[in-house]
Amino acid sequence: MGTIRGSREGDPSVAIIFRVVARAPSSLARAGEIITPHGVIQTPVFMPVGTQGSVKGISPDELLEMGAEMVLANTYHLYLRPGADLVRDAGGLHAFMNWHRGILTDSGGFQVASLADLRSITDDGVEFRSHIDGSRHFLTPERAVAIQEALGADIAMAFDECVRYPADRDYVRDAMRRTTEWAKRCKAAHRREDQALFGIVQGGVFPDLREQSARALADMDFPGYGIGGLSVGEPKDLMFEALEHAVAHLPEDRPRYLMGVGTPGDFIESVSRGVDMFDCVLPTRIARHGTAFTSAGRIIVRDAAYARDFSPLDPECDCRVCRSYTRAYIRHLLKAGEMLGLRLVSYHNLYFLIRVMRRIRASIIDGTFKETRQEFGDICGTK
Amino acid sequence: MGTIRGSREGDPSVAIIFRVVARAPSSLARAGEIITPHGVIQTPVFMPVGTQGSVKGISPDELLEMGAEMVLANTYHLYLRPGADLVRDAGGLHAFMNWHRGILTDSGGFQVASLADLRSITDDGVEFRSHIDGSRHFLTPERAVAIQEALGADIAMAFDECVRYPADRDYVRDAMRRTTEWAKRCKAAHRREDQALFGIVQGGVFPDLREQSARALADMDFPGYGIGGLSVGEPKDLMFEALEHAVAHLPEDRPRYLMGVGTPGDFIESVSRGVDMFDCVLPTRIARHGTAFTSAGRIIVRDAAYARDFSPLDPECDCRVCRSYTRAYIRHLLKAGEMLGLRLVSYHNLYFLIRVMRRIRASIIDGTFKETRQEFGDICGTK
Repeated sequence: MGTIRGSREGDPSVAIIFRVVARAPSSLARAGEIITPHGVIQTPVFMPVGTQGSVKGISPDELLEMGAEMVLANTYHLYLRPGADLVRDAGGLHAFMNWHRGILTDSGGFQVASLADLRSITDDGVEFRSHIDGSRHFLTPERAVAIQEALGADIAMAFDECVRYPADRDYVRDAMRRTTEWAKRCKAAHRREDQALFGIVQGGVFPDLREQSARALADMDFPGYGIGGLSVGEPKDLMFEALEHAVAHLPEDRPRYLMGVGTPGDFIESVSRGVDMFDCVLPTRIARHGTAFTSAGRIIVRDAAYARDFSPLDPECDCRVCRSYTRAYIRHLLKAGEMLGLRLVSYHNLYFLIRVMRRIRASIIDGTFKETRQEFGDICGTK
Repeated sequence: MGTIRGSREGDPSVAIIFRVVARAPSSLARAGEIITPHGVIQTPVFMPVGTQGSVKGISPDELLEMGAEMVLANTYHLYLRPGADLVRDAGGLHAFMNWHRGILTDSGGFQVASLADLRSITDDGVEFRSHIDGSRHFLTPERAVAIQEALGADIAMAFDECVRYPADRDYVRDAMRRTTEWAKRCKAAHRREDQALFGIVQGGVFPDLREQSARALADMDFPGYGIGGLSVGEPKDLMFEALEHAVAHLPEDRPRYLMGVGTPGDFIESVSRGVDMFDCVLPTRIARHGTAFTSAGRIIVRDAAYARDFSPLDPECDCRVCRSYTRAYIRHLLKAGEMLGLRLVSYHNLYFLIRVMRRIRASIIDGTFKETRQEFGDICGTK
């Protein structure tokens, strides 16, 4: 059972403690706990995404109620608006958002790399233009760390370069090397004792590059590791292959975070490959298109088929929305452009993924992970 | 103390009981209770507006938490979408919305009259085109009652013709007479024993027409009375004069509902003239423009002045929003287009008006209404 020393033992680079509490046989799946300055996170964990300091349509009280233990916020967005200094002066992101459980901030690397013709990347950092007002900015590893220290999340991420699929192997290798160099600079720059800094593995879909990246970062002894640059357009089998090669070379006693993934099927397949943490905008994004997760697959509740359906979004769900509202009412709200419709579907979708992850965790602890994976495969068609 | 016999005493036209519990000296202000099939409403009462079966951005749980006792829903909107039959089949509006306290539906008269060139009014009813899809509809007093019976609110309103200010006296007189005839037809058509039907006084800003209208409706013995066609563009002094002439000829032992009004200043001035019930879209509408009620007047929290203001929307407010969030955070959410910003301002604004009304009611009961009215006048500049 791996344990990372806590910050109380004097190492400023480790503000969290990770403990494995159970493992699934014949699999890399494990159930664990991450002790953070804002509570204990039970892993595997799904983290709702609060891009601009708010999980779309959902209040912190509701996140607490649905059992969220950690949320993700985006450094790029908060840096541009309202500004990291303002958040710091508000008492940090926890106080600003009124969310007093765990927060993880990404580094902004993914967003600035996505700006396409609005940015240029060098070994020094990324120059880019704001998507809001076109203003010029320069983000370096040191600056990304300083911003995240001002935001004050429990977990910060090293500045990385995320490459979309498909990409030229040489480019992916260069980006991976740059990410490794940047990780060193981030670690050297990071000061906050109450914040853990994770490195990020890159390397696209190339197993040897994933291995190189993971080894180099493992040598730097981060308290946890992100696995980035996956679920960016590549086929699932390539994603899982790359994931396996990354995990194989990361230390056993540190949490592993698969960034930006995904669906219930992705969760269980990735957990079986040793992943502990996930974030994804899917539940709130599909809600905006009137789509809800259910135990029998997704439904588009906006569809006319649900106009007179007086059953809950998911008859097997016990969330507040499913206990209180019908598909017919939610469809009416969505068709009428009422904000409450979006709120209700978003709430249910987030709850659904949190519950999926809880079920996965419970199955690791009670020894039924294999059966659970089989069931998920049947429903999700991932294997 | 006036009491209307309840439906249990066999009169199908009175499903509610109204009781006056206190009166303010030298004023027509009174504190009362309306006992409905869905709980007791303490009057004077402010009713949040749920036009399409949802108070914009706010859940029924939140309405309960903020102390709302009755909400208004719009017959015109619900008739067009999702349709009254669907709501009836869902178990009525209470079940459909998951709101188990009081509901009042307007008659649709105000909305169809507002459709301008999309409608034509005759003594028989109103022919109009849907604002959604241009489809043709014909609304009569009997149809408006049937729709409201299908919706199943605790209080339904007679079909009326609301005339905007300014308007020709002859037209206002004709519309008032039509409204009186329609009230008779509505009363004759109304069947539901668990629903009260209110008549609506019209007559524009003309005191004699208001008197005629009120007298004619009082003769019909409705269990309560709406006062419509005010706050539609006329100066405040004309509004209050018309209100006084309506109230003077309405029975003392029935609740009086001033439709579509308004602000804290309007509330206390109207209560002092004998009004018991109010509804208004203002709190959620101004929220959409980033404006919040405060004890020191309205603030536009979107303004740059609040960017670094880490105090609550209203430092004197004890609502959940003011206990949890800062102006700076709410401004950020509004600027970033985050739905939560609108939710938080809407919640606070609704709570603010409910609290204002509670304070007015308490002052009637404890004998300080006169002083409270003076204070409101100082803040609101209404007198």
